[in-house]
Amino acid sequence: MSRLDSFIRRVTAQRACLDYAAQLIDGQDGVVLEVGLGNGRTFDHLREIMPDREIFVFDRQVASHPDSTPDEDHLFLGDLPDTLARAAEDLPQPAILVHSDIGTGNAEWDARMAEMMADVLPRVLKPGAVVVSDQKISLADAEDISLPAGVQKGRYFFQTYRGR
Amino acid sequence: MSRLDSFIRRVTAQRACLDYAAQLIDGQDGVVLEVGLGNGRTFDHLREIMPDREIFVFDRQVASHPDSTPDEDHLFLGDLPDTLARAAEDLPQPAILVHSDIGTGNAEWDARMAEMMADVLPRVLKPGAVVVSDQKISLADAEDISLPAGVQKGRYFFQTYRGR
Ligand SMILES: C[S@@+](CC[C@H](N)C(=O)[O-])C[C@H]1O[C@@H](n2cnc3c(N)ncnc32)[C@H](O)[C@@H]1O
Ligand code: NI
Ligand code: NI
Repeated sequence: MSRLDSFIRRVTAQRACLDYAAQLIDGQDGVVLEVGLGNGRTFDHLREIMPDREIFVFDRQVASHPDSTPDEDHLFLGDLPDTLARAAEDLPQPAILVHSDIGTGNAEWDARMAEMMADVLPRVLKPGAVVVSDQKISLADAEDISLPAGVQKGRYFFQTYRGR
Repeated sequence: MSRLDSFIRRVTAQRACLDYAAQLIDGQDGVVLEVGLGNGRTFDHLREIMPDREIFVFDRQVASHPDSTPDEDHLFLGDLPDTLARAAEDLPQPAILVHSDIGTGNAEWDARMAEMMADVLPRVLKPGAVVVSDQKISLADAEDISLPAGVQKGRYFFQTYRGR
């Protein structure tokens, strides 16, 4: 498998995961959090498949395509977990879906970030919320959900937060 | 269609074009030129689908993934068209396939580059060579080839060089 093949597989799996997550939360109240804006492709997809949701975006800086940049009321700029702590105060409602795509490829750093996410996320989640992430986040009070068809194990992680 | 959707379409079409190009030149002598290394994904794909071909790569600089960086004997570093002119002297054989992926999104610049390519490519091509490009290159003494199935018109350009 070439790097082009595995890249196509990765972005295709990512889309399958987002589409599936949107189905899972259909009909349930709550905002959506996009953690990691990057070039804005997944943000653009989320808002297209969930046109009626408020989507809040987190990143250190804006480096997205101009077409895919959230307005400033939906942007938390700065370092995670500061921005997530701020969101816990400022969000109009808790989140029913979080998509976290913040892996860097540096295993040590990514593990630290995943641990931080596990600590902070409960402050912004609704019971029943779905967390979809490119790294394994060991959230307490949560259950794993199986991946959508066609997505390789370990490529994405799905869980639902029971609340406490 | 979200930007994620159109991105998936683009990379999938790219792979279909490279696979098809490899079929078209199957059994014919000649080297392969990858014009525009970028992160090296298509270079990696080309060498995977054509393990027995010599592939020469052109870019201004090396910014590819370490796994997908050609050795220095197969790398022409510098500005096109200088490097293509150098290749015309130094290649062990003329090229039976050129993949050119150098579009920047700046229409004026891209048109200038396409014109430059049309001027310079004949110096490195074998009669019968296939030229696959992300921009329309108006090569003299060449015929358009239809795109592989599933690839949208205008996304990629295929032609075969008759020679002169
Ligand atoms: C889009 S990237 C290629 C991506 C690659 N085909 C892939 O999919 O993995 C385009 C590359 O062309 C190179 N390039 C564009 N114009 C060039 C020129 N005039 N001279 C040398 N390199 C050029 C850029 O440096 C860049 O790395
Ligand atoms: Ni655009
Ligand atoms: Ni690698």
